[in-house]
Amino acid sequence: MTTTPSNLTPSPRDAYDDEHFDADLAAEIIASCLERGDSATLTNWFAEGLAVDIADALDRLQPAQLAAALLLIPVDEQASIFGYLPLGRQTQLVAGMSRAAVISLLERMSSDERADLFNTLPAGREAILPALAQAQREDIRKLASYEKGSVGAIMNSQYATLTPELTVAEAIDELRRVAPDSETIYNAYVIDEQRRLVGVTTLRRLILMPATTRVGEMMKSNPVTAFVDDEQSLAAEKIARYDFIALPVIDRQRQMVGIVTADDAMDVMEDEVTEDFQKSGGSLGAWPLRMKDATIGLLYRKRVFWLVLLVFANIFSGAGIAHFEELIAANVALVFFLPLLIDSGGNAGSQSATLMVRALATGDVHMRDWASMLGRELLVAALLGLTMAIAVSALGVVRAGPTIALVVALTMQIVVIVGSLIGMSLPFLLSHFKADPAAASSPLITTIADASGIFIYFAIASQVLPGLASA
Amino acid sequence: MTTTPSNLTPSPRDAYDDEHFDADLAAEIIASCLERGDSATLTNWFAEGLAVDIADALDRLQPAQLAAALLLIPVDEQASIFGYLPLGRQTQLVAGMSRAAVISLLERMSSDERADLFNTLPAGREAILPALAQAQREDIRKLASYEKGSVGAIMNSQYATLTPELTVAEAIDELRRVAPDSETIYNAYVIDEQRRLVGVTTLRRLILMPATTRVGEMMKSNPVTAFVDDEQSLAAEKIARYDFIALPVIDRQRQMVGIVTADDAMDVMEDEVTEDFQKSGGSLGAWPLRMKDATIGLLYRKRVFWLVLLVFANIFSGAGIAHFEELIAANVALVFFLPLLIDSGGNAGSQSATLMVRALATGDVHMRDWASMLGRELLVAALLGLTMAIAVSALGVVRAGPTIALVVALTMQIVVIVGSLIGMSLPFLLSHFKADPAAASSPLITTIADASGIFIYFAIASQVLPGLASA
Repeated sequence: MTTTPSNLTPSPRDAYDDEHFDADLAAEIIASCLERGDSATLTNWFAEGLAVDIADALDRLQPAQLAAALLLIPVDEQASIFGYLPLGRQTQLVAGMSRAAVISLLERMSSDERADLFNTLPAGREAILPALAQAQREDIRKLASYEKGSVGAIMNSQYATLTPELTVAEAIDELRRVAPDSETIYNAYVIDEQRRLVGVTTLRRLILMPATTRVGEMMKSNPVTAFVDDEQSLAAEKIARYDFIALPVIDRQRQMVGIVTADDAMDVMEDEVTEDFQKSGGSLGAWPLRMKDATIGLLYRKRVFWLVLLVFANIFSGAGIAHFEELIAANVALVFFLPLLIDSGGNAGSQSATLMVRALATGDVHMRDWASMLGRELLVAALLGLTMAIAVSALGVVRAGPTIALVVALTMQIVVIVGSLIGMSLPFLLSHFKADPAAASSPLITTIADASGIFIYFAIASQVLPGLASA
Repeated sequence: MTTTPSNLTPSPRDAYDDEHFDADLAAEIIASCLERGDSATLTNWFAEGLAVDIADALDRLQPAQLAAALLLIPVDEQASIFGYLPLGRQTQLVAGMSRAAVISLLERMSSDERADLFNTLPAGREAILPALAQAQREDIRKLASYEKGSVGAIMNSQYATLTPELTVAEAIDELRRVAPDSETIYNAYVIDEQRRLVGVTTLRRLILMPATTRVGEMMKSNPVTAFVDDEQSLAAEKIARYDFIALPVIDRQRQMVGIVTADDAMDVMEDEVTEDFQKSGGSLGAWPLRMKDATIGLLYRKRVFWLVLLVFANIFSGAGIAHFEELIAANVALVFFLPLLIDSGGNAGSQSATLMVRALATGDVHMRDWASMLGRELLVAALLGLTMAIAVSALGVVRAGPTIALVVALTMQIVVIVGSLIGMSLPFLLSHFKADPAAASSPLITTIADASGIFIYFAIASQVLPGLASA
């Protein structure tokens, strides 16, 4: 599409330009190579390409094409490509593989991805366990047992450990020895006889040290850790804060049980952001699937609850208006400004809520800051309300005369302050009751601000208008 | 606060519990140590503590305390702690330092942070350049010159290069030699005589290879790169996609000029998410400061434009209502349902927009998917609208009789479909015109959905009601 191939046979390599990898184009080229029986081109690319790109291209193939392509990939590479395929696709593929092929694949996959895949296999999956080596068998059982959302569920059991009495030269040899089975050897974890974590060091520090120095003398003590039953987001935050490649995981006896790698932490953070984003937008709850794959039924179910709830919440607004029926009948011009006024309160509130939800999520603002934030928000909202009141009063005079313009301006000032206070306080309130502040969505705030806006509007109007209207 | 100190003198170490570091508590302890003249406790912690924690605690001190504390930190550590302080605080500190101290600090800082600090120094900053070594001088000039938002502005010029003819043993020696001046030695970049990037390798691969293998034989060719004038987000996406520790940066002559590290890429992504989040909430634009530090004036200026704009956009809603004045006067009960109906369209639209904005941002959905998304959204919205119409018609019959209930239910069905279509299409439309899809904020969609909702409502009412009302 972008680069011209140097030879006449197109290769999936041609799907790269300087900026991007075009997985759709690569998939087309793979399909046409398979059709022509040109396995040389494919074998070449599978050997030199990046696993995530290969997985992305393969994921776009038909099941039969995918199965044929997989046969051209060496089994070691297969394992790392497998980890990048969506879990549903992995399960589907495994269903078509021989028992021996599944076992050889599981043996080579990284421990966290292996446990995930194992968990999705159909009933009877226990039957393949005896065929695996004992250590892998225990590893799968252990990793597959941690609760969803816990650090244990994303951790990896393939890490490098050292002991304090090793020399630096011995430590480097040990890292070299365990490298094929380790997720990373750039961080090494120093443990005592009870497997308790006593220190960490890095390959960088090791290769800079004299060969005879003892690991115990050059390691960093008091390492930052996560507990295996901590929430994933806690581990992800520590990795982001300290710029770690990996974070050691310990159990409550402080024994080392695994590591969380930076790339898995990034995935956790991305999912959290998506969830916050969707809650704020009023969709309530996270989407387990990619948007493209979501079915109509799922989209409906996820959205309908919240929308219908808001319909019933709006009964308050309706009741408020019914209460002022006569006033409205006598001053229909009041209705002109109704959408404007209630929108403005909701809009100001949405702004405040958005700022607070994100500030709470990034740790920029804490629960204890509520009072100081409140004072500042009051001032900002008063200024915003004043500006908007001036803007709207010009409009009001032209449309409905000075009296109604006054009512509208006054209402605007109050509605913006009330909306802002609701918007900024709701995230704190939710956080206080251990709920997710991101549930303070724009639709929720709009609905609350509406009901109060209507009441404020007609209450002011009924104070100002009757006397003047009869005069 | 959480742990009991093992000795009687409190140390900033006591500010750690298992889960968190309490920077406020650490700052208090530092202040009291300084007051008592207990520099031993502080020196200890500054030597063993993590740079980001130390910076966080120092940032909470008074300027005089901070200056006193800095004197206790070895100059090499100072440089890394400095990089974690907010830029404003760095500038403030440098203003109080001697010229010699500033120069020794700049010499030790990492190249990207050094260039950032240099850019914030007051006029006359060029005067300190001659005191620096020539290489650093040129480095500062070059890095400080890249445009904000470009890869060049966040890249680091301290990376390890190798040449293809080196043996593996020579390469490891070379990495050891350059380690003190390199951001990372886990990735090494292989360049030719023109400094063009021809391959990459890792320290892991190097220590696993036989000592006499040539780098040119074991390196990976065709490395993934970013251009120095690319947008930062592009480099960040590549690092996240490929789980890189660092990404090499080349100029348009394909010469290697720097690296972007994973931690800097994470910062870029976090800023982008915050920006998207705030745009979606209708606050328009990013917040350059932390929320806690934002002044009232800044908060006002950032929010007022958007709110006033929406006030004027609401003129359409008002005009719509004015057009149906007589109808409303004759059927005041219609007003009861006005907030409910216009909110529902806005709410459904906000949901759609939120899902689309995030799906476009994560690359889950692309421009070309618009048509297929549209069909599905139409179906989902029709189902949602039907459900909500049924919910509201029960309410309508009780409140205002069967005729108005019919009008309300019909309007609800249409308003939800229209709102959803606006919500899902606007992000695509903005993206098509190279604007940020995240600008499709809830307030904007609410306002557009309102104007159309009002028109739909009264148009249907005027068709159904006059005949029946006169009957």
